[in-house]
Amino acid sequence: MVILISFSRVIVGNFYSSHSYDRVSYNADSAVCIDHTGMIQQILSKTDPNFSKIIQTAKTEDRLTFLNTNEVLLPGFIDLHIHAPQWPQTGTGLDLPLKEWLNDYTFPLEAKYANHTFAKKVYSDLVSSLLAHGTTTAVYFGTMHVSANIELARQCLNFGQRAFIGQVAMDNPFETPDYYRDSSTSSSLSATMTFIQKLTELTGPSSRLVKPIITPRFVPSCTDDLLEGLGKLAHRFDLPIQTHCSESIWEHNYAISRFHKHDTAVLDHFGLLTDKAILAHGTQLDETDLQQISNAHAAIAHCPISNIYFGDGIFTAARAHRYQIDVGLGTDIAGGFSPSLYRNIQQSIMSSRQLPNQSENHLTTANAFYLATYGGAKSLGLKTGLIKPGYWADFQIVCLPDHNDRPASDNNQLERLLYATTANDIKSVYVAGQQVI
Amino acid sequence: MVILISFSRVIVGNFYSSHSYDRVSYNADSAVCIDHTGMIQQILSKTDPNFSKIIQTAKTEDRLTFLNTNEVLLPGFIDLHIHAPQWPQTGTGLDLPLKEWLNDYTFPLEAKYANHTFAKKVYSDLVSSLLAHGTTTAVYFGTMHVSANIELARQCLNFGQRAFIGQVAMDNPFETPDYYRDSSTSSSLSATMTFIQKLTELTGPSSRLVKPIITPRFVPSCTDDLLEGLGKLAHRFDLPIQTHCSESIWEHNYAISRFHKHDTAVLDHFGLLTDKAILAHGTQLDETDLQQISNAHAAIAHCPISNIYFGDGIFTAARAHRYQIDVGLGTDIAGGFSPSLYRNIQQSIMSSRQLPNQSENHLTTANAFYLATYGGAKSLGLKTGLIKPGYWADFQIVCLPDHNDRPASDNNQLERLLYATTANDIKSVYVAGQQVI
Repeated sequence: MVILISFSRVIVGNFYSSHSYDRVSYNADSAVCIDHTGMIQQILSKTDPNFSKIIQTAKTEDRLTFLNTNEVLLPGFIDLHIHAPQWPQTGTGLDLPLKEWLNDYTFPLEAKYANHTFAKKVYSDLVSSLLAHGTTTAVYFGTMHVSANIELARQCLNFGQRAFIGQVAMDNPFETPDYYRDSSTSSSLSATMTFIQKLTELTGPSSRLVKPIITPRFVPSCTDDLLEGLGKLAHRFDLPIQTHCSESIWEHNYAISRFHKHDTAVLDHFGLLTDKAILAHGTQLDETDLQQISNAHAAIAHCPISNIYFGDGIFTAARAHRYQIDVGLGTDIAGGFSPSLYRNIQQSIMSSRQLPNQSENHLTTANAFYLATYGGAKSLGLKTGLIKPGYWADFQIVCLPDHNDRPASDNNQLERLLYATTANDIKSVYVAGQQVI
Repeated sequence: MVILISFSRVIVGNFYSSHSYDRVSYNADSAVCIDHTGMIQQILSKTDPNFSKIIQTAKTEDRLTFLNTNEVLLPGFIDLHIHAPQWPQTGTGLDLPLKEWLNDYTFPLEAKYANHTFAKKVYSDLVSSLLAHGTTTAVYFGTMHVSANIELARQCLNFGQRAFIGQVAMDNPFETPDYYRDSSTSSSLSATMTFIQKLTELTGPSSRLVKPIITPRFVPSCTDDLLEGLGKLAHRFDLPIQTHCSESIWEHNYAISRFHKHDTAVLDHFGLLTDKAILAHGTQLDETDLQQISNAHAAIAHCPISNIYFGDGIFTAARAHRYQIDVGLGTDIAGGFSPSLYRNIQQSIMSSRQLPNQSENHLTTANAFYLATYGGAKSLGLKTGLIKPGYWADFQIVCLPDHNDRPASDNNQLERLLYATTANDIKSVYVAGQQVI
């Protein structure tokens, strides 16, 4: 059985994976074979002639994970938008408008990450908590502190979470407080450069787990020169970009008043609307913006819980999908109060049912599952979010809720699971084939 | 210390309790003294001259519960609307319209409660689960089966949950399936009578824990004679009433088409709109309905999660409050997918932020906490939901979320707690002074 030598692990059981935006496929009694790089090499069904032999060999070599009948394998979730430093303020001050919330809660807290010990304590707790909630990939906003951001990277490497980490750039004295602002445009750009360099030193040049992402906080907090400089950096190093885009009426109007155009067009003007850009929120985007985002092949991070508090509206994910824009889900900690993508799947469905034209804008269970898995992965150009050969073995093993009655169908079982799962129901989590929880 | 002899337990720590609809009071280092009937007899602050002596005596007599600094005492929650038999279908079929959901999922499931073993298994699991989520009082719809409903009562008594239990009455052949319908109006009324009698035999005539509640399922499923008969029964035995009221556009229009008036007026016509009536949902109520409900001193069970799936709109709790109507929260299992009142507190706030005229209809954290505690208790005329002398000692002890940072205020701490608590954070639960979890 030469074929077996290359497997690092074989997981046997039932799994769900998106077949398309509208359909989730259920695969019973499958053997998911993971190679030594952490990728799914092949998936065998029970009827495959090699099925029993592979299981037997994996068992002998202690490389077998056999799911109980009350457990299923799911792709790990992708959190496409989360502010790591805001973890300590989660669930507080949500009654305030965005700008007050930033000034009263967020900026003072983020400033504390100049203290490395504080950063280490919070980031260790955050990364392990997210993994425990089934989030195998996170796209993080850090702070303006290089050393704290490197500490976040270190925690991701320690715990084994796939991550993009952003050195937050913000230099506009009119829209940022004195105590929490890059001292100049050039210092902001050089902090980003330093961060990229230090991160590369930490991870090695070909790291597949933790990568840098260019991060202008949002248009209001950046000068024109900074936006332009970051666009050039992203281009020069071929890096992904993340920023907020038309999150609230205030932000939307700010861009109009300063640039006489929408956020999307501003970002495009500065070279920040690329096919590697992740735009968070987008609640105020109009049809022109969506077409522009679609043309640029940029992606949108939909943060359904956060939208309710700070978005002045709900992002219509179904409409963006009609524009063929890649969309994933973000917790937006701490604009959203929950670190769980399950909670955001639920809220994305619930909020979509309150949109106008419900029938065309309503997200189904299958749609929301897609957003939390492959939608996020595709936005990042990452081979994850599907249980399919050639994709990373980023998984969660989830215990099914027991309600004394068998669900009527596999779809019902998935629906129930997505509505009921908490961190306590997640038995184990794998990233690139390594068990991390 | 003669005074101490009458205490069955003293709980010492910090607690939150509604001061009013708009304000929650935080009481640090208090001694909550519970008498032998299970009521709060007095509450002493740390500065009270008897504080130390009472704690010392309680400790000596092994009657002291001392909260850790990371724990708080809260009133137990009241679930004002829940369908006990639907527990096994929780989180499934939520994409369907109400009528299809009833016919495809709910009625076939409810019919299964003719099987007593099935009923016992489900109800045991349900009652213990609700208590574990901090729900100390539940207002249950049962099924049309007397013995299953008595089994539900037995489980409430076994586990120590305060409950109102309803024998579901439904005899209209045009709106109920053949296999799940009272065979006639008189058999429906006599089943309700039998249930009340058997429940009284089980609990004793002066039971303070478990009580019957008159339960016409909703207007469509009842004939005129049944509605009239149930109204008379409620009056004759001075019993509370529960039913659905203007839950969906379909139900709202059904009443108009059959009676040429709204649900509220129909209920009033049949003597079912009393000061002991709990009307579930009410998403389609207009100003006239609200005024009528207010005049009758009836109450409304707001089920924010369920509304999103089956309500065709969100009940505007703040508006009902302006009409001086008592409002509490209901999970509406399985129209709502979560057994947790915490989840419904969160959703009541979130949904209210998506209503028109947000500033006047927006629920604050304090409002939602009030609805889940005293709002529900007041709707039922029950002395619970507050931590105050003369009220039942129905409590939950909750571990505070730890986010490596101290919340800015006691209000922030409560907000975070209400957004983060799951059953795993609830350390213990008391009903009438008895620890039940």
